[in-house]
Amino acid sequence: MNRSLQRIGIIVRPETPEAMPYLRQLVAFLRAQNQSVGIDPKSLVYGDEVSENWLAQHCHAIAQQHMGEWSDVIIVLGGDGTFLSAARWVAQHQVPLIGVNLGHLGFLTPVSAQTMLDDLRLILAGQYIEQNCVALQAHVWRDDVGISQNLALNDVVLSRGLSGRMIEFEVFINGEFVYSQRSDGLIVSTPTGSTAYALASGGAIIQAGLNAFTLVPICPQALSNRPIVIADSSQIEILVTKAYDARVHFDGQAHTDIQSMDKIVMSRFEHHIRVWQPQNYQYYRTLRQKLRWGEQLV
Amino acid sequence: MNRSLQRIGIIVRPETPEAMPYLRQLVAFLRAQNQSVGIDPKSLVYGDEVSENWLAQHCHAIAQQHMGEWSDVIIVLGGDGTFLSAARWVAQHQVPLIGVNLGHLGFLTPVSAQTMLDDLRLILAGQYIEQNCVALQAHVWRDDVGISQNLALNDVVLSRGLSGRMIEFEVFINGEFVYSQRSDGLIVSTPTGSTAYALASGGAIIQAGLNAFTLVPICPQALSNRPIVIADSSQIEILVTKAYDARVHFDGQAHTDIQSMDKIVMSRFEHHIRVWQPQNYQYYRTLRQKLRWGEQLV
Amino acid sequence: MNRSLQRIGIIVRPETPEAMPYLRQLVAFLRAQNQSVGIDPKSLVYGDEVSENWLAQHCHAIAQQHMGEWSDVIIVLGGDGTFLSAARWVAQHQVPLIGVNLGHLGFLTPVSAQTMLDDLRLILAGQYIEQNCVALQAHVWRDDVGISQNLALNDVVLSRGLSGRMIEFEVFINGEFVYSQRSDGLIVSTPTGSTAYALASGGAIIQAGLNAFTLVPICPQALSNRPIVIADSSQIEILVTKAYDARVHFDGQAHTDIQSMDKIVMSRFEHHIRVWQPQNYQYYRTLRQKLRWGEQLV
Amino acid sequence: MNRSLQRIGIIVRPETPEAMPYLRQLVAFLRAQNQSVGIDPKSLVYGDEVSENWLAQHCHAIAQQHMGEWSDVIIVLGGDGTFLSAARWVAQHQVPLIGVNLGHLGFLTPVSAQTMLDDLRLILAGQYIEQNCVALQAHVWRDDVGISQNLALNDVVLSRGLSGRMIEFEVFINGEFVYSQRSDGLIVSTPTGSTAYALASGGAIIQAGLNAFTLVPICPQALSNRPIVIADSSQIEILVTKAYDARVHFDGQAHTDIQSMDKIVMSRFEHHIRVWQPQNYQYYRTLRQKLRWGEQLV
Repeated sequence: MNRSLQRIGIIVRPETPEAMPYLRQLVAFLRAQNQSVGIDPKSLVYGDEVSENWLAQHCHAIAQQHMGEWSDVIIVLGGDGTFLSAARWVAQHQVPLIGVNLGHLGFLTPVSAQTMLDDLRLILAGQYIEQNCVALQAHVWRDDVGISQNLALNDVVLSRGLSGRMIEFEVFINGEFVYSQRSDGLIVSTPTGSTAYALASGGAIIQAGLNAFTLVPICPQALSNRPIVIADSSQIEILVTKAYDARVHFDGQAHTDIQSMDKIVMSRFEHHIRVWQPQNYQYYRTLRQKLRWGEQLV
Repeated sequence: MNRSLQRIGIIVRPETPEAMPYLRQLVAFLRAQNQSVGIDPKSLVYGDEVSENWLAQHCHAIAQQHMGEWSDVIIVLGGDGTFLSAARWVAQHQVPLIGVNLGHLGFLTPVSAQTMLDDLRLILAGQYIEQNCVALQAHVWRDDVGISQNLALNDVVLSRGLSGRMIEFEVFINGEFVYSQRSDGLIVSTPTGSTAYALASGGAIIQAGLNAFTLVPICPQALSNRPIVIADSSQIEILVTKAYDARVHFDGQAHTDIQSMDKIVMSRFEHHIRVWQPQNYQYYRTLRQKLRWGEQLV
Repeated sequence: MNRSLQRIGIIVRPETPEAMPYLRQLVAFLRAQNQSVGIDPKSLVYGDEVSENWLAQHCHAIAQQHMGEWSDVIIVLGGDGTFLSAARWVAQHQVPLIGVNLGHLGFLTPVSAQTMLDDLRLILAGQYIEQNCVALQAHVWRDDVGISQNLALNDVVLSRGLSGRMIEFEVFINGEFVYSQRSDGLIVSTPTGSTAYALASGGAIIQAGLNAFTLVPICPQALSNRPIVIADSSQIEILVTKAYDARVHFDGQAHTDIQSMDKIVMSRFEHHIRVWQPQNYQYYRTLRQKLRWGEQLV
Repeated sequence: MNRSLQRIGIIVRPETPEAMPYLRQLVAFLRAQNQSVGIDPKSLVYGDEVSENWLAQHCHAIAQQHMGEWSDVIIVLGGDGTFLSAARWVAQHQVPLIGVNLGHLGFLTPVSAQTMLDDLRLILAGQYIEQNCVALQAHVWRDDVGISQNLALNDVVLSRGLSGRMIEFEVFINGEFVYSQRSDGLIVSTPTGSTAYALASGGAIIQAGLNAFTLVPICPQALSNRPIVIADSSQIEILVTKAYDARVHFDGQAHTDIQSMDKIVMSRFEHHIRVWQPQNYQYYRTLRQKLRWGEQLV
């Protein structure tokens, strides 16, 4: 056991009773190694009082907003959505995250709940690959006043709303005008997000770890408006000229409603999100499985 | 002059003061030929009382909902949007439509306002090409009760809303199951609509007049969910299994909010929309101009 | 047994020794029903003299070029490639074809070799769906002299060659100029071919039986050069203005080398290709399996 | 004048008589500044003896293969093709290149021949932006023997040939297996090449200067085979398992014929290609003009 890992935070997918057996198994495993376990009691309201009492006995009650500060490492039990949410909560604290999936294999949650103990034993003993994921920091400005700021590990998505009307906006990179566009919106994605919504919208796959963001138009009216890949040191600004009922989404988990002439300004978040992967993790194997690519024949 | 064309309806883009000179020019031209002109006074509230009084003297006041019944032919003064709206109003009456554009050249409005009198003189004298455009009739069903029905000349678009969450649905053609899909939505388009939103979403161009509809997924999660072109005699049914805040749009001009397990059933409208084009109209020339395709070199 | 089906032709994939057991099984089955079986001895040179002698005893020797004329129905044992080849041989004679696949399930070969006898018993007894597939007839003209003519059930593909240089050409539909294009080539596809190379090149899926062809550009330089779907009553003409080392392929099985200023003229072949499918054949089920589309959940 | 720029090499598009007046104008301008001008006499065989004699008097005869060594800077008079060719000749010598276009505006040739003297006066006086373009170095291996090696500033393209048959290959990045693919080929492109063939084949635009390469499949049979963007420090290996008549092209200017089981191994060339741009050069303005993107409205 890595001696510096005394405090293990656990963030679990809310409203998921089927997570409970794995959670108890995980806590028992960590406690048997004499590690302190932190969990937010609010995330445990499943109506299963026996388990909740058991967890209360064996864990420290750590509220979500203090989890990053309290923990030496955080285990996320859920899917990619839970992981994205956890990452946004703790990004400020540079605490490493380990993703355990309760459902389908994910890029961020490569450890299966069914076999997690073997993987976690190795990872917590120091046998892991640390992947440093870049995040986007976004500010929305209205009349030169900041009205919201947010983080995204996957993507910042400017999107039309219920009206169904295409929105219009202008894009600037490092202050240089790039294009004006009429479309359903624009996805600004990290490499992590490039295999999510950006891929469905026609973007390229950006290899994890590449110092790049990608801008992917959503159903642009002009057929020449194609995805662009830019350096992650760039400042990206979107000036929304006709908003109708547009909204900007951060990892699909938070949002800000947009008005015409609002500006969305994005750049790389100052810290990386630290993700610990098992040592046998292979990026392209995961891609192949997700995308059902052809296997090696020769 | 074609003697059977005694009553000419005019539908003009609302809230467009710059249409007024063309409208007066058009009415004067028709009155000089002893044709009766019908116009809906409600569409004329521009604050230009002189023109409004002049029009009131020279035109019959025909409410929008009676225009199809009253007119022998209808001239639409506006853009493709005004034309789509007019077509949906008068579809039941099989009255021919002539589209005059106030702005950019359109497929439905190939006559330019600047030079409309020359074109209209010929068209009204019988020198036109009648294009018969197929329309979609859509019914939305909830618990086996019809909750709305609508027409579309361009497209019926099932689309996610402000939540940004992908919706899930199943598609059936003539009762045969086609696929289940997770995406931003689905466009069901006529040939007329195939150069509009369907094209921006990755669809093929369907030649005007082909007896076909096309189904174009919007940002589908599965990369193999590609556009399909089917016979326009098909019955298309979408069963929305996870709606979130989905909505179905008809030509982008009317809509119905959708709940999970709603069904949208579409088929060809019983009548064609009759569009009169100038005899020198060329479909592919218009496509080339719209899409900036290469011109003939040899 | 359908009394009119006395003569059953068999066309088998050449150079495929593993087809032999199925072929013997098939001949034995047909002979047991007192049907005459025709086969081209040239297609049987596998070095398995026992089988070849056995087949020679039980079958009539019918050369490939007489197979269409001789047979009441033809069973094709192979893959989609063998079927396309057979269809091109017998198209003139309007004899129905039944496709039995030796490998992967195909749109044209929906009967599996492993279970063919059950399906064939039903089909030959009249329990089939006849699908009428449209074919393309293509003529290549040089200086107003026809230099080749060919049929295609899938597609006619104009394609650049080894030089890697994009070719340039102009397209006309029914004599109307459509566009000039600089690209790797152009696919003109039937509905049958729309799920083959045309799909890989970005085309839409055209429902089997729709009276349409589709034109799909291959890597066009201009991003607005998108696939078009047109009526199958159209005459399509390609004038190749810069050929370099271009070639035109017919179903990938025959070809003509092209020079600058050659014309390729295509239209619907006068007869349909008649394909007999089992009665439980479902077009969209085959599509789902091929494209791994989502299955029905509700 | 920058004193260190004494020797100016000129590389001109071959077989282009219309370049001659610009070439004479350029030489006269440089000679008036007392600079030595080098040109390869073999590139001047236009049948215009007067000009050829005049050039012979005013220039040093420097063979193409010594141009990189001899020159302090090289001016390329032609189009992007001439520039790519020049860059491949002189890459070893790290001499800066200035591109003057004789035709359409290019990313590599942003100076117009019509107005070149004003731009060149400033550039040669030190007022330029140096863009460092990454190049690809490619080796082809057969049975562990290197059979060719080449450079590419735009792209290395593995491509099927005249047979029209899809080829099959496996891709490895830094030794990790990525996918097996069946397609018309694969484009490995630099950022410079990302707006050329890679864009026509569905790739994303990679911002000039990003430390990345992109792999773009050409008409892949599997719809999930999408473009990938990877670090330019990667080693890329393609193992061609079924070659048919495949060929690998380097910037479309050199090639090697490929056999089954050949390996193509690519990595970043050790030196950058140094390109001098006018100080008012804007990457996105050039993109907008090339792709006809929307201009700034607000």
